[in-house]
Amino acid sequence: MIIVLKPSTAPEQLLAFTEKLKNDYGVRINRWDGVHSTVLGLIGDTTQVDIEYIEAQDIVESVKRVQEPYKKANRKFHPENTAVKISDTVTIGDGSLHIMAGPCSVESEEQIVGIAKSVQQSGATLLRGGAFKPRTSPYAFQGLKSAGLDLLKTARKETGLPIVTEIMRVSHIDMFENVDVIQVGARNMQNFELLKELGKTDKPILLKRGLSATIEEWLMSAEYIMAGGNDKVMLCERGIRTYETFTRNTLDISAIPVIKRLSHLPVIVDPSHAAGKSWLVEPLAMAAVAAGADGLIIEVHNDPPHALSDGAQSLTPQQFDGVASKLLSLKKALTQ
Amino acid sequence: MIIVLKPSTAPEQLLAFTEKLKNDYGVRINRWDGVHSTVLGLIGDTTQVDIEYIEAQDIVESVKRVQEPYKKANRKFHPENTAVKISDTVTIGDGSLHIMAGPCSVESEEQIVGIAKSVQQSGATLLRGGAFKPRTSPYAFQGLKSAGLDLLKTARKETGLPIVTEIMRVSHIDMFENVDVIQVGARNMQNFELLKELGKTDKPILLKRGLSATIEEWLMSAEYIMAGGNDKVMLCERGIRTYETFTRNTLDISAIPVIKRLSHLPVIVDPSHAAGKSWLVEPLAMAAVAAGADGLIIEVHNDPPHALSDGAQSLTPQQFDGVASKLLSLKKALTQ
Amino acid sequence: MIIVLKPSTAPEQLLAFTEKLKNDYGVRINRWDGVHSTVLGLIGDTTQVDIEYIEAQDIVESVKRVQEPYKKANRKFHPENTAVKISDTVTIGDGSLHIMAGPCSVESEEQIVGIAKSVQQSGATLLRGGAFKPRTSPYAFQGLKSAGLDLLKTARKETGLPIVTEIMRVSHIDMFENVDVIQVGARNMQNFELLKELGKTDKPILLKRGLSATIEEWLMSAEYIMAGGNDKVMLCERGIRTYETFTRNTLDISAIPVIKRLSHLPVIVDPSHAAGKSWLVEPLAMAAVAAGADGLIIEVHNDPPHALSDGAQSLTPQQFDGVASKLLSLKKALTQ
Amino acid sequence: MIIVLKPSTAPEQLLAFTEKLKNDYGVRINRWDGVHSTVLGLIGDTTQVDIEYIEAQDIVESVKRVQEPYKKANRKFHPENTAVKISDTVTIGDGSLHIMAGPCSVESEEQIVGIAKSVQQSGATLLRGGAFKPRTSPYAFQGLKSAGLDLLKTARKETGLPIVTEIMRVSHIDMFENVDVIQVGARNMQNFELLKELGKTDKPILLKRGLSATIEEWLMSAEYIMAGGNDKVMLCERGIRTYETFTRNTLDISAIPVIKRLSHLPVIVDPSHAAGKSWLVEPLAMAAVAAGADGLIIEVHNDPPHALSDGAQSLTPQQFDGVASKLLSLKKALTQ
Repeated sequence: MIIVLKPSTAPEQLLAFTEKLKNDYGVRINRWDGVHSTVLGLIGDTTQVDIEYIEAQDIVESVKRVQEPYKKANRKFHPENTAVKISDTVTIGDGSLHIMAGPCSVESEEQIVGIAKSVQQSGATLLRGGAFKPRTSPYAFQGLKSAGLDLLKTARKETGLPIVTEIMRVSHIDMFENVDVIQVGARNMQNFELLKELGKTDKPILLKRGLSATIEEWLMSAEYIMAGGNDKVMLCERGIRTYETFTRNTLDISAIPVIKRLSHLPVIVDPSHAAGKSWLVEPLAMAAVAAGADGLIIEVHNDPPHALSDGAQSLTPQQFDGVASKLLSLKKALTQ
Repeated sequence: MIIVLKPSTAPEQLLAFTEKLKNDYGVRINRWDGVHSTVLGLIGDTTQVDIEYIEAQDIVESVKRVQEPYKKANRKFHPENTAVKISDTVTIGDGSLHIMAGPCSVESEEQIVGIAKSVQQSGATLLRGGAFKPRTSPYAFQGLKSAGLDLLKTARKETGLPIVTEIMRVSHIDMFENVDVIQVGARNMQNFELLKELGKTDKPILLKRGLSATIEEWLMSAEYIMAGGNDKVMLCERGIRTYETFTRNTLDISAIPVIKRLSHLPVIVDPSHAAGKSWLVEPLAMAAVAAGADGLIIEVHNDPPHALSDGAQSLTPQQFDGVASKLLSLKKALTQ
Repeated sequence: MIIVLKPSTAPEQLLAFTEKLKNDYGVRINRWDGVHSTVLGLIGDTTQVDIEYIEAQDIVESVKRVQEPYKKANRKFHPENTAVKISDTVTIGDGSLHIMAGPCSVESEEQIVGIAKSVQQSGATLLRGGAFKPRTSPYAFQGLKSAGLDLLKTARKETGLPIVTEIMRVSHIDMFENVDVIQVGARNMQNFELLKELGKTDKPILLKRGLSATIEEWLMSAEYIMAGGNDKVMLCERGIRTYETFTRNTLDISAIPVIKRLSHLPVIVDPSHAAGKSWLVEPLAMAAVAAGADGLIIEVHNDPPHALSDGAQSLTPQQFDGVASKLLSLKKALTQ
Repeated sequence: MIIVLKPSTAPEQLLAFTEKLKNDYGVRINRWDGVHSTVLGLIGDTTQVDIEYIEAQDIVESVKRVQEPYKKANRKFHPENTAVKISDTVTIGDGSLHIMAGPCSVESEEQIVGIAKSVQQSGATLLRGGAFKPRTSPYAFQGLKSAGLDLLKTARKETGLPIVTEIMRVSHIDMFENVDVIQVGARNMQNFELLKELGKTDKPILLKRGLSATIEEWLMSAEYIMAGGNDKVMLCERGIRTYETFTRNTLDISAIPVIKRLSHLPVIVDPSHAAGKSWLVEPLAMAAVAAGADGLIIEVHNDPPHALSDGAQSLTPQQFDGVASKLLSLKKALTQ
């Protein structure tokens, strides 16, 4: 950590400050005097140093971290890729490509079982579906809730596909005991109370990036879960909020290689929510695979115009079949 | 609601679609045929119409709302300003200016009582202080929790100032029973489960704007609380996330007059979090008053360099005294 | 175009307004009366209708375009892809993949000829290089200027590669007469005077997207050039400005399929400027090809640490050789 | 300037690098070795150091400027406020408040003279009006051009108000010889060729902030003009591009105090373009004055619904009279 002091700093202030840093954090300090400012370099483990405390000092002009503030999610301290085992046949992050597919909302047994069978045949290896739905409007359909979870389990029984579904509330964790992958939605990425509790479970977590979260904040949210003892975290890029309005969000394709460099955790891409338009799903999914994603999560609905939520971005099973086939061919070509 | 259809729409598709809209939503439909497209206008109450359902139709090119999707928060249906009564002496939204002041985190009885007395003397009419703290890092100080709530109550007893503090979890609602104003932080603005539960209480709620929430989404979150029966909602602008990095966030000063026009709810401004730098608090607070804010929430710490969180943006009691005096003079000049 | 009127509109105002619209723009008007508002639909060619004029009317609440404001760049009126012929062997937009490569700045004959030969061997089909450099700081190296152009021509003579270089000023157009592709930089995307003059030439133009330009604004800038009679426009996505700071810009990968749908013009992607880091060039370039780009423009420098500008994002010729080989293999796999 | 090196740096690389820095830039270097990295501090004048050169080094992990990259615009080297004298009676930046008012576009002698007289009576001290108009669409009205300049001069003759108008092209500089303040529009903020040429004149320049320019980039554009010898630069905040779409742009009110701290140049605020809606002009202008702006530039049109451009955000002369009166009263109250 590098601290730039104001030119006006008095020698006794400087002394008091450096003594305090040494005592509080056990760091060593290197100092040099420039023309307009004095600079301090902290040597040692600075993860515990509260950057806000430093910035609050009257004598401090600016602070720069040299070391990242996350540890467990950091590739520096964990050089090999983390592979998250979901079931006997599904491991994410081991170099293979996995496609999670299914409807935005679970609506009926017929719907979810039908879609599950269909996407499985097209090559999907996990089933996604929303039982609890975060909706901007209190007047919109909020999901089938626990009945939806039951229907997902029925579909799993019929197909063997592990299920991925979103949690919205700490008190529901017990209810999700039998779910294979628990999804944390973008709007809850910094619901720290939920993250802490999920850290106490041993469930694989799919952590979506917040609407305007930086990559560092996203990794810090992963760190919340991992700090609790659960290291089965997968990061899901789903588009960020920008000034461009043609697409619902802007898929940050760079996030894939950046996460791969900074962290050892697997990266999944959600082209459906990023785009908000079904005709954009294919090109964005192709791009994600070419950029190195470990998996995709794609909305598929047997009858998009009658979907109870997010129909505009859903593929039909037939469309999905074409897209999945291209994605799997691309992955094959890239690994040859 | 206006629906633009694709040029390729067949007459029988059009017929089926319009019949469905009439039956499902009880709306009347006006249609006209342009050169390149057909346009439908829905007449009646369209708040219930699911815009995503419409967008998902194969035959639909785009949709535009004419009516806002929020009702209870909408000035159209509630033309007079809402004034939220907090205590016998404090009502927010009645044309007066209220300043909420206090430390980011409650740290000790001496600290909070000392600050409370000091800010009261300077003109503050509510005491703010964090007991539960949402922190980006799992390794940072997370607040004194319930002990912090107790200390706030002690400070209230000593000064009579109503207290404002942040809630982070549904299961804490009972613990906040004796708090005067419950704050929902920016990161929880779309924690819909929390909003729903707060809607069942009769507590005044200070709803902070999400880091990258649009004004419409913010009003929809207010609507979540109000739909549950609690109409004591105050909206707090605290800066939005933009590309500019000199300030921590960009204070959206326009949000004040925009909310005043779209809604009847009071608007509070938080210049401390918007700026992230204490020397920016005064000019931003002055701007907020000049633009019509009903109140301000300002961080004050007796010893900012030793604050356990957010010290960089805190004023000392002496600085606050100067700022509060200017703000109250400005308010007076504006209302003469 | 759809115009929503305020509820307070008087019948005589409505009449006067609709008459004026009919007379000024030769459009027909369809009107319907909703519960809270009256809506007008304009039928006919609305490209000429000044949306700002409409919005300025006291009686107007909001306006929505149904038709895009660009014509010549619009795929609706030009369904086939435009292929821009640069030389006897290079045509962009015909389904093939072209790689433009070279240094940010031309520095010496040895440098530019050496890089040209090297990138040609690796598969590049055009040579890029900056002679006039737009730099944020007036104190930074501004390019070799006309001497740089001469060196590019020397490199072209040695290799046969067509050259791509940036123009910054209307008065330089004559000097660029013998350049194969004239690049308009992001900062000049809305330098309308320059666009108008380039519209009078018959040179292929590579129009970079502005730092925070919407896709519609970008297409309108293409329209400026095309309205002058020059339809050889190629659009270059180079990353947009967002709140994320880890990458210099955020590559908007969605822009590729979106432009392909809205327009018939070729799309080139610049992964070097988007990322600002050389290790991100490969994954972003791969993503661009998978998403359907017609070409790439990649910075290559024989000695990046000693490059006079933008070294951090340049590849060495050896690195470029590896990347180009993967890109061409990917393109081949995708077209099989 | 602080340079963090990669852990893998070899001693001989380090030596070669530090020698080069010393020789090329005449700086002294302080170095310390941390646990994971080595850090170099450059002491001396680092304005000339090319940050991109540093970042391009293989051995460099990151670089941080301690000193700002601008000099002439920097308050550190010029502590007193710069006051720009426009005419015998108008000096901007001396603590007084100046209002520039007038139509977006000059349309006729009757229009511009009428508005000039009216706004002068309401308290405006400069007349603004566009003769050359940058328009997104090539099909929109582009201004009366040189005839518009003549009409502005007529209005100046009639009222004595100095005139402010926008330049779009280097070759027009001679034509602007007799203009009092030359405006550089947001879209040309980084048209460096234009800035360089304006630096050779002695005209007061009103430099609008680019649509998504950082404060540092904006100051660097001022530096371009000042580096040429012209220090009569005024900075105009006009709203930045964000994800929020309710307002046309987001007025960055913080920019006023930030510029006042970093620079000695005057700050003008344009509430009309920031908001894009006439009813927002008053509250935003009030906020700007309360935050410390030296002036305002406000669009006024005698007949907004028939304005040839930007009518939606224009005030009528009657509305302007009310707004100007409130602004001048506020300024008086603030300086008492």
